[in-house]
Amino acid sequence: MRDVAIIGVGMGSRWGKYNGSLIEMMAEASLSAIDDAGTDNIDAVFVANMGAGRINNQTALGSALIDYLNLFPAVGASIENGPASGATAARIGYMAITSGLHDVVMITGGEKMRVAPGPVVTDFVATMAHPEAEYIHGITFPSLGAFLARLYFEKYGVTSEDLARIAIKNHQNGLKNPHAHIQQNITMEGILTSREAALNNPMIADPLHLYDMCPVTDGAASLIMCSMDKVQEFSNSRFVKFAGTGQGMDTMAVHEREDPTFLKAVDIASNQAFKMAGLTRKDIDFAEIHDAFEILELAELESAGFFERGKAHLAVREGETELTGTFPVNTSGGLKARGHPVGATGVAQLCELVWQLRGEAGERQVLNKPKHGYAVNFGGFGNNVVSTILSRVEE
Amino acid sequence: MRDVAIIGVGMGSRWGKYNGSLIEMMAEASLSAIDDAGTDNIDAVFVANMGAGRINNQTALGSALIDYLNLFPAVGASIENGPASGATAARIGYMAITSGLHDVVMITGGEKMRVAPGPVVTDFVATMAHPEAEYIHGITFPSLGAFLARLYFEKYGVTSEDLARIAIKNHQNGLKNPHAHIQQNITMEGILTSREAALNNPMIADPLHLYDMCPVTDGAASLIMCSMDKVQEFSNSRFVKFAGTGQGMDTMAVHEREDPTFLKAVDIASNQAFKMAGLTRKDIDFAEIHDAFEILELAELESAGFFERGKAHLAVREGETELTGTFPVNTSGGLKARGHPVGATGVAQLCELVWQLRGEAGERQVLNKPKHGYAVNFGGFGNNVVSTILSRVEE
Repeated sequence: MRDVAIIGVGMGSRWGKYNGSLIEMMAEASLSAIDDAGTDNIDAVFVANMGAGRINNQTALGSALIDYLNLFPAVGASIENGPASGATAARIGYMAITSGLHDVVMITGGEKMRVAPGPVVTDFVATMAHPEAEYIHGITFPSLGAFLARLYFEKYGVTSEDLARIAIKNHQNGLKNPHAHIQQNITMEGILTSREAALNNPMIADPLHLYDMCPVTDGAASLIMCSMDKVQEFSNSRFVKFAGTGQGMDTMAVHEREDPTFLKAVDIASNQAFKMAGLTRKDIDFAEIHDAFEILELAELESAGFFERGKAHLAVREGETELTGTFPVNTSGGLKARGHPVGATGVAQLCELVWQLRGEAGERQVLNKPKHGYAVNFGGFGNNVVSTILSRVEE
Repeated sequence: MRDVAIIGVGMGSRWGKYNGSLIEMMAEASLSAIDDAGTDNIDAVFVANMGAGRINNQTALGSALIDYLNLFPAVGASIENGPASGATAARIGYMAITSGLHDVVMITGGEKMRVAPGPVVTDFVATMAHPEAEYIHGITFPSLGAFLARLYFEKYGVTSEDLARIAIKNHQNGLKNPHAHIQQNITMEGILTSREAALNNPMIADPLHLYDMCPVTDGAASLIMCSMDKVQEFSNSRFVKFAGTGQGMDTMAVHEREDPTFLKAVDIASNQAFKMAGLTRKDIDFAEIHDAFEILELAELESAGFFERGKAHLAVREGETELTGTFPVNTSGGLKARGHPVGATGVAQLCELVWQLRGEAGERQVLNKPKHGYAVNFGGFGNNVVSTILSRVEE
């Protein structure tokens, strides 16, 4: 089997509110990845997107992006897997290359979500819930996040302060990421312990406050993958190895799970990725975790095997997951601060891994030349999860 | 590289108006393919669908189908490539197997379109047109079909009677297909030459009448692919070989093409598929052609290299493309009679190829034991096309 490298990454302009079209936004990110790779000699384009047909009146985005950028004769399609669309598309890019059908593949994720009022966006996101058991009863994703947090609070003694600590950390990292939507420090006093905190940080779905969940963001991210044996053709020595990918599933309806605090799909996906990469948890230097809700950062870190069950919040209290800690988590700012344009998130996580492994993450660079990075991209409410491991290649 | 086989196909219940949910409809088709294959030991599921997020309030269909059928630990995702979603998903299934990541993959295409009034459906389909050059100006796909027909009429002397001949042939075939939406004979007199014809067959987009285009249909289709070296594990001797796949692109805006009567993407996709299969046009015994508009049956047959440019309608006049002709086309009834649930069509085309190659097509069986079948699945208005060749395996 051919090995696969990532030879270029890019995120275009800063995430937040994008005033152009969805395709323009994805084209910007794609061009930044093409510039980074130093080639536009691309065979195939997979676009990761969840809802353009619904919220942007556009389908067939793979075709549209290729046409817009004049990447002919590249061929394309769109990949949709809820908020895990990005890493799923990268996984399919890996298949496209290792199958021998294509040598160079571009993965561009994008979602233009700030086109509609909040309730419309919340409804859009809920279209991936179970249609009969959840969606038609009005279940929203913030409510699922709240259920999970309540279980965690009761079972493991996690507190609102713990969730706030994660948000504060991710905001600190986001402040150092020029692509992040939210570039603003927050404090425990400002969001939880002062008189004004209740106004700054209102309850959304008890026990989750506004700052316990990601914002609604427009954004795109892109990466270019290449068969390892062809990397030299592009004279780019800054490539990283696509070392492992895994995908796991769980029941769609959250209430059907024996213990919802254990994310089985994360466990399966991670085990597969580690097996493929030939690495153990101890080999990983830093991680991008899908914190659509801050409680998920704890649950995913535990289910992926980086911390014992019910213990990740203790590591957070000790500062272990901070940028200068023993295991930095969400150096990009995570979904909380970078933002969460659903189709783009999984690709942006891999961009951050690449920048860190190349030593190009600037003020948020992980110390001591990290060698292996891990990402988890969480689809549905954890029923369809993709984990990826990228590794620095020794020169 | 591993060879890939199709070991099971199915289309569930008759296409037309489906009263259950989209997932139920896709599950029915999937179960018929699983029964046919004799295994539900499936590693991955790719769902082909274009618009469920928009017209059925549901996303993440791969997850939903796996959950509904309890196919765990199979993993899944959705593939969207306009009306070419089906063959694109099969192509990605081929990649999944040849990459070594998966051994057995199920491809299920489905679209539940009869949920909204005609203009809403027409608008939904138009979301794959060029957003600035076509969609916002009100271009619809019937109008694009009409433009193409007019060019053909002027350039090659094709007539309304020629289009009607294709529709009549495809209705004749559909009458022999228990899955077809439209199972009804039509005559030249009934739709074109009698006094009542103008009522039976009104003009929709000059020069196209109602019977020159496909109906709006609910439907699903499914197939199961397996690495050739694992076929014996399933003790199914009726498998066919996935011999060739090709994908080609053209400009998104139709008016940018030098000569819109030549479908460049069909040409590219076909050449690739033939090269991979190691076959020539003369080796192909029958074909499924994407006749969303009957004029496309002519244009695709010519652009795919089966007839000289501007000559396919002469072959139709001679009856060559009829079931008993020298080169049967759309033995299933095609999009005209079987129907065109956009995400399902490309998968249904491959189901028909499999049934014909296995000699199980009943009343519509192609004579003389066909050995190689060809399908073209047409995305956008011909800007993203996938061609597939399936071959009977000698026992």
